[in-house]
Amino acid sequence: MVITNGYKQNENERLIDIVNLTQLEAEAKQIIPAGGFGYITSGSEDEFTLQANRKAFQHRQIVPRSLSNIEKPQTDTNVFGIDLKTPIIMAPAAAQGLAHVKGEADTAKGVAKAGALMTESTYSSASIADVAAGGGGAPQFFQLYMSKNWDFNRSILDEAKKAGVKAIILTVDATVGGYREADIVNHFQFPIPMANLVKFSQGDGEGKGISEIYAAAAQKIGPKDVQRIIDYTDLPVIVKGIESPEDALYAIGAGAAGVYVSNHGGRQLNGGPASFDVLESVAKAVNHQVPVLFDSGVRRGSDVFKALALGADLVGIGRPAFFGLALGGADGVFSVFEHLNNELKIVMQLAGTKTVADIKHAKLLNIQY
Amino acid sequence: MVITNGYKQNENERLIDIVNLTQLEAEAKQIIPAGGFGYITSGSEDEFTLQANRKAFQHRQIVPRSLSNIEKPQTDTNVFGIDLKTPIIMAPAAAQGLAHVKGEADTAKGVAKAGALMTESTYSSASIADVAAGGGGAPQFFQLYMSKNWDFNRSILDEAKKAGVKAIILTVDATVGGYREADIVNHFQFPIPMANLVKFSQGDGEGKGISEIYAAAAQKIGPKDVQRIIDYTDLPVIVKGIESPEDALYAIGAGAAGVYVSNHGGRQLNGGPASFDVLESVAKAVNHQVPVLFDSGVRRGSDVFKALALGADLVGIGRPAFFGLALGGADGVFSVFEHLNNELKIVMQLAGTKTVADIKHAKLLNIQY
Amino acid sequence: MVITNGYKQNENERLIDIVNLTQLEAEAKQIIPAGGFGYITSGSEDEFTLQANRKAFQHRQIVPRSLSNIEKPQTDTNVFGIDLKTPIIMAPAAAQGLAHVKGEADTAKGVAKAGALMTESTYSSASIADVAAGGGGAPQFFQLYMSKNWDFNRSILDEAKKAGVKAIILTVDATVGGYREADIVNHFQFPIPMANLVKFSQGDGEGKGISEIYAAAAQKIGPKDVQRIIDYTDLPVIVKGIESPEDALYAIGAGAAGVYVSNHGGRQLNGGPASFDVLESVAKAVNHQVPVLFDSGVRRGSDVFKALALGADLVGIGRPAFFGLALGGADGVFSVFEHLNNELKIVMQLAGTKTVADIKHAKLLNIQY
Amino acid sequence: MVITNGYKQNENERLIDIVNLTQLEAEAKQIIPAGGFGYITSGSEDEFTLQANRKAFQHRQIVPRSLSNIEKPQTDTNVFGIDLKTPIIMAPAAAQGLAHVKGEADTAKGVAKAGALMTESTYSSASIADVAAGGGGAPQFFQLYMSKNWDFNRSILDEAKKAGVKAIILTVDATVGGYREADIVNHFQFPIPMANLVKFSQGDGEGKGISEIYAAAAQKIGPKDVQRIIDYTDLPVIVKGIESPEDALYAIGAGAAGVYVSNHGGRQLNGGPASFDVLESVAKAVNHQVPVLFDSGVRRGSDVFKALALGADLVGIGRPAFFGLALGGADGVFSVFEHLNNELKIVMQLAGTKTVADIKHAKLLNIQY
Repeated sequence: MVITNGYKQNENERLIDIVNLTQLEAEAKQIIPAGGFGYITSGSEDEFTLQANRKAFQHRQIVPRSLSNIEKPQTDTNVFGIDLKTPIIMAPAAAQGLAHVKGEADTAKGVAKAGALMTESTYSSASIADVAAGGGGAPQFFQLYMSKNWDFNRSILDEAKKAGVKAIILTVDATVGGYREADIVNHFQFPIPMANLVKFSQGDGEGKGISEIYAAAAQKIGPKDVQRIIDYTDLPVIVKGIESPEDALYAIGAGAAGVYVSNHGGRQLNGGPASFDVLESVAKAVNHQVPVLFDSGVRRGSDVFKALALGADLVGIGRPAFFGLALGGADGVFSVFEHLNNELKIVMQLAGTKTVADIKHAKLLNIQY
Repeated sequence: MVITNGYKQNENERLIDIVNLTQLEAEAKQIIPAGGFGYITSGSEDEFTLQANRKAFQHRQIVPRSLSNIEKPQTDTNVFGIDLKTPIIMAPAAAQGLAHVKGEADTAKGVAKAGALMTESTYSSASIADVAAGGGGAPQFFQLYMSKNWDFNRSILDEAKKAGVKAIILTVDATVGGYREADIVNHFQFPIPMANLVKFSQGDGEGKGISEIYAAAAQKIGPKDVQRIIDYTDLPVIVKGIESPEDALYAIGAGAAGVYVSNHGGRQLNGGPASFDVLESVAKAVNHQVPVLFDSGVRRGSDVFKALALGADLVGIGRPAFFGLALGGADGVFSVFEHLNNELKIVMQLAGTKTVADIKHAKLLNIQY
Repeated sequence: MVITNGYKQNENERLIDIVNLTQLEAEAKQIIPAGGFGYITSGSEDEFTLQANRKAFQHRQIVPRSLSNIEKPQTDTNVFGIDLKTPIIMAPAAAQGLAHVKGEADTAKGVAKAGALMTESTYSSASIADVAAGGGGAPQFFQLYMSKNWDFNRSILDEAKKAGVKAIILTVDATVGGYREADIVNHFQFPIPMANLVKFSQGDGEGKGISEIYAAAAQKIGPKDVQRIIDYTDLPVIVKGIESPEDALYAIGAGAAGVYVSNHGGRQLNGGPASFDVLESVAKAVNHQVPVLFDSGVRRGSDVFKALALGADLVGIGRPAFFGLALGGADGVFSVFEHLNNELKIVMQLAGTKTVADIKHAKLLNIQY
Repeated sequence: MVITNGYKQNENERLIDIVNLTQLEAEAKQIIPAGGFGYITSGSEDEFTLQANRKAFQHRQIVPRSLSNIEKPQTDTNVFGIDLKTPIIMAPAAAQGLAHVKGEADTAKGVAKAGALMTESTYSSASIADVAAGGGGAPQFFQLYMSKNWDFNRSILDEAKKAGVKAIILTVDATVGGYREADIVNHFQFPIPMANLVKFSQGDGEGKGISEIYAAAAQKIGPKDVQRIIDYTDLPVIVKGIESPEDALYAIGAGAAGVYVSNHGGRQLNGGPASFDVLESVAKAVNHQVPVLFDSGVRRGSDVFKALALGADLVGIGRPAFFGLALGGADGVFSVFEHLNNELKIVMQLAGTKTVADIKHAKLLNIQY
């Protein structure tokens, strides 16, 4: 363990045995300090939406299909012109140094090993350059928390572009921080610097609370901001935090190259629906004009299957990658992706779907349990 | 602490730290005597309706809206020609001396500091005059439990008018007391006199049980009573305890200046619906003819948002104010209002609604969890 | 206490304090021997239907009505030409000697004091004559478990008629005993003789298991049996155990003077619906041709109200009367009826219904909680 | 007890007292080694589908029917031209040596005594010949896990045919093993050889994990395989693991003589619906062209009734037979069938259905609890 500003950072580097991603959380809790663990796992207010995210997958059921004459299901896919070995991606998630001393660099390396897509947060512990250098060559997207300071925005987008990221994910559901009680109860302040913030006047985040970090972020985001980032970067811009058909069309109208359905893992607006429960209506509105990305609550291969069947093209996981990172560094992250992808393959075979494209034609039932 | 008739009244005067209003209840339980705490928090019969009041907010979900290009949401509103800094109001609630030695005078002072609306109960511990004098200048409504004795009614309405209240809230859902088992189990009798009752033959409530208090109240209330009070006071009369479109229209027909949707916090008719679950149908029937007030079960900023979105113009809290009053007097009440309003502002920002008026156009989903 | 065949029979004779009928069960459990208590309270199989009987009342909600201009609600009613002070009746229930040494004689006395209707079971501990003699003059119905032996049927109907019963309730949902596991686990056999069986060859039930008792009952019951009993007794015959519109019409077609909706308190067919959940459809089919009686799961004044609102004319309680009988004999039974009727009156006032007839026009909501 | 490869095999041979099949599981847990018990009772992933299988029976309710004028209900039935004393059959279930040293031979003997239908798994502990020899003459079906090796398939079908089985059940929902976590946590490997595998190169299963066993099975199964087995055996072929109308029609199109609705007891695709919840739609699609078999979650006579009412012709049990086998060998299995059939008879009587054919016309309600 490394002690950084009084916070114990894990240094494990190993493949890990996984029974399931839910149990992994309990294991990770043993080794991630309480403040960091609270920050990673908690949601906002009374966590209704956080819990709804998990329950929602039970709202739809997969029809087992036999006699489908398939075998060896393949999880390969191509989205945004990028070949991936799995539709499961790393969701944007800040401050991975809370789980492991190498932070996002190790995450990216594990993701690369799994043939998946990495996304790096503006608020990452490791810098864009370090992640690119140490990340094992995973295709990367860069997630932007738009600052009030456009010098900052331009600078960080320049860095991201220089590092070769293939798209920008603009998060629009966090113009103010969700009311996360665990952080308040824990008096949580970021012990680990946020590398990308270091050279800006707003500081590097170290020793700051979540609300201070968000205070520097733009509270006011509209379609013109989407257009401005497209114009500046000339990269595909994916708008993240879309939970309604209206916003999806609004984003596409502003030039978005992708729509990312997410409620921020239940960390922002509490009292809203599960992300899974709005996915289908958003995907129908998008109607294949642009790819649909999805996250919030995914823990099972069957969850991934269901999200794909309702219209997602890529399915993100966040917290489980933190757990894998804490327990095994890059190899731990790889183990998480491999495990989840293996669960997915079993579901694909039993549902009679040989490819990711087949999943998109799979029927789900909606029986109430 | 002051001991009044063997009952320990709190004297705290301080701002309080609040994580959320649910946890505040547990803190308040430590310092409010058991009989008073039971009276304040319990509902009738097996508390089905009390519990339904909380569950009901989960029946509807707020759609997070991004790209709305708003910031700094404002909670100011104007109802009945009164400027308020928040749509959250103090609901009529009797006997606040159970929580604090200064009772409603301190509540009114905290409410004033929050820029909210105070309503004072007929059965208040502090007199109308004392609340007006010590209440910090909050706009006030006076809530009337209509007596069988019209001398009493006229006298108390005179006092209220003299004190400058801006409207009368006539409670019509309590023509008999709900069957509240906690009070029976606790053999609860009011230890603190009810100031407004002192000069009447019916006594001041001290040492009486709830059923004795209600016995003096009119059991028979009809539209003519509404008209009589309007005629006598020449003030706007809001009818409180409306739970159906039928009664809303009936009240408006009788001249009501406002409709107050409430099931008395689950304290009266048990086996009825959650107040939140009937709000939309009542508001639709009212159709903006008069303002709609709402209470019963509100604990979260998201609850306030949802009630406004379904048609409420003002949203009341009752028990949480008792908890703040016990823990911090006027400043404690202020802390409660400020906390809840801050939660509301976060929800407003994340839902893309800059004003209270915007909230009224917000769409809610109804997914079952 | 009296020890009868090793079974301790209670002898209490006193008014009892009641908070609610649910808590009364816990009190009664302290003084009714385990075997008897298991027989009284248990249902069949895994008690799905028993539990559904309670849950079902939450499926419908009473709309509080204000401004209704009523007071002093009255529970008087007249059914089958009989004046009653309450629509709550004693449901047919066997073997009340398990709760009290005086059994049904005391029950009838308490029921009489409450101005309610007594029904006596074929399998009562006290004889028809003793109940009539000691029962305080309550109007009585006699419940018939039809025997395979028509000599027995004729004899017991003769006795009932001689005792002045005003109607026969023919139970048709128990042609075989439900599979009640508590009785099997307890190796329960009736310790108290069944007085009406004494003079018949089939024995008096003492020392017999439930299945042996039922073995003497007719397994095969059809409309001709209804007609035969009508013809023999020239009394109104009410068919009990109707749970479908089809059977209700079938019974009326066979000459039934009343339809009794009940699933035998969840003691017979498990896996069936709550009795309350089928009441409305049965009542609509009956369409006021004959009175509708109802029981199964009633514990609250609001339950009684809801059943009346959905079409019942009389609402029965069974187990709660056993608890009152055990704890207080005739006066205990009276306390139970009085308490429940008082709860009903509060609900009536708050729902704006002055009479039992008004309740029948009350609207219920069906919101899911 | 016999110790086989370190695994304790039970040897009990006795009739057993049964309160219900749920409690029987707890008893069996005391005497079946943990690894075997985990294998028998667990489901896949987080067991959502396993649990849904039980909950689903509560989705439909049996209407008690009185005045039906029936008695002595009969459970006799004839399916595939075979006379059976009960519609309850032994579902295909592998490795019964885990419960008892005599394995399927004893199961078949108990099933024969109950007048029911035996089905034997490819992966049975006892060989086809031994089961036929020791099985007491129960009519038997043989369940085939189709191997990648057609020499194996032909050989085992030859043996089955030689042993006189009356139909082949082709399992198609297990082209890969479900993700069963209990087996992983227990490091479970089959301690008991699988007799039918002994002479093939793939080995006899002993000391192998479940995934190794499934690896030898065909992952790719289509309608041509159904046809091939029909052609080879000239026996009726029933396709097992059908959960949708589409697959049912597909199977019948391929020549299937029966459709077996099952989700493999929740052991294969998790995240799918309860088997009971899809039964009705499958049966309607089949529309009496071929018999419909059903299993997954059956524990109660009322469950059997409900499945028959929704379209099943035969209803299978699996795990409860293991419990009976462990506790009492052939007589234990007989006790299980007899108990469940007795529960069914009580339900039949109370639902007014004299025959299995009558059940098929019984109406079920669908009220939500």
